[in-house]
Amino acid sequence: MAKVKCGISVSVDNCAAGHHMTEEHPFGDMPQNLLHHWQLDEPEKHKAELHALLDGGAFIIGRNMFGPRGPEYDRSWQGWWGDDPPYHAPVFVLTHRARAPIEMKGGTTFYFVTDGIESALKQARKAAGERDVIVMGGADTVNQFLRAGLLDELWLHIAPIVYGDGERLFEGVSMQGLEVLDVRSTPIVTHVRYGVKRG
Amino acid sequence: MAKVKCGISVSVDNCAAGHHMTEEHPFGDMPQNLLHHWQLDEPEKHKAELHALLDGGAFIIGRNMFGPRGPEYDRSWQGWWGDDPPYHAPVFVLTHRARAPIEMKGGTTFYFVTDGIESALKQARKAAGERDVIVMGGADTVNQFLRAGLLDELWLHIAPIVYGDGERLFEGVSMQGLEVLDVRSTPIVTHVRYGVKRG
Repeated sequence: MAKVKCGISVSVDNCAAGHHMTEEHPFGDMPQNLLHHWQLDEPEKHKAELHALLDGGAFIIGRNMFGPRGPEYDRSWQGWWGDDPPYHAPVFVLTHRARAPIEMKGGTTFYFVTDGIESALKQARKAAGERDVIVMGGADTVNQFLRAGLLDELWLHIAPIVYGDGERLFEGVSMQGLEVLDVRSTPIVTHVRYGVKRG
Repeated sequence: MAKVKCGISVSVDNCAAGHHMTEEHPFGDMPQNLLHHWQLDEPEKHKAELHALLDGGAFIIGRNMFGPRGPEYDRSWQGWWGDDPPYHAPVFVLTHRARAPIEMKGGTTFYFVTDGIESALKQARKAAGERDVIVMGGADTVNQFLRAGLLDELWLHIAPIVYGDGERLFEGVSMQGLEVLDVRSTPIVTHVRYGVKRG
């Protein structure tokens, strides 16, 4: 059966972004590339991990990963990624405001889901067919999936920095067993692939 | 120059112990061996890391790592480790109550330091000579050293579990660059050795 996976870049203290996101600062207070040097500075060394980030038949993202907070964006905003987003597949956006789907170039269509993560997952599974569903983030969305026990795999890309106070992975998640599937590191990132234990 | 190092076992969400520690429950709410299966179940696979944990000329521990909370322990309590503790060297205990040193078997002597981490480090450096000083924990003590910029190396032994709500490493620590020195993993623990960047 197709799996539900999440890959997310975090600091050593599990921050995935800073607070106070705006259109100009998609990572809020956090310097924009702080956690992503591995993607930007040495992509050749991380081909497998970069491929895995987008190797899904459908994607799920939180409202704050789709765009900055604020209702003014609801009608005209089409995501951070330009005309041809990198997903090339259906993307289900968790939100509280209904909106018609937006068909982009290259096969990406944003669908807006107002009735929660289980509904989004059901639609994403159906759209993905035999391929995996990927939960892209942000931290709050991943935490909702962890709390509900709906993830099969969690890939952490850990930048060697303590960030301090940000949007934190695992917040509100109670005891959950994992399994180390794979670990690989360069001096600027540690990739840890965890399986999420059930029951 | 000798280094100041810390090795600590944590969950994926950086908890080193549960809340509500007592004499019967040194890890508080946390099941006692949750983070230490690597030490107990497969010591042969982790000889280098086990050796490193105690490879110091002097040690620093927090009051709550020396004994459970409560003034009744102050005069008779001699630590969790029996007559012959595993340190075989001076151990400086951070506390608010003065107490005469306790000389144990095997070369361990507990010294009680009431004037803070910098004083404890100065005394430990002097006692250790050319050997390293090891900050043993718990989380609050390590966080004090991180906040003050006094650690050279941080070795995390990460158990594959999300714990939830416990005594958390990195709490109150603001932005701090690290350097990945070494990473090694088995299915039940991921060892990450970080250098702590200065300035």
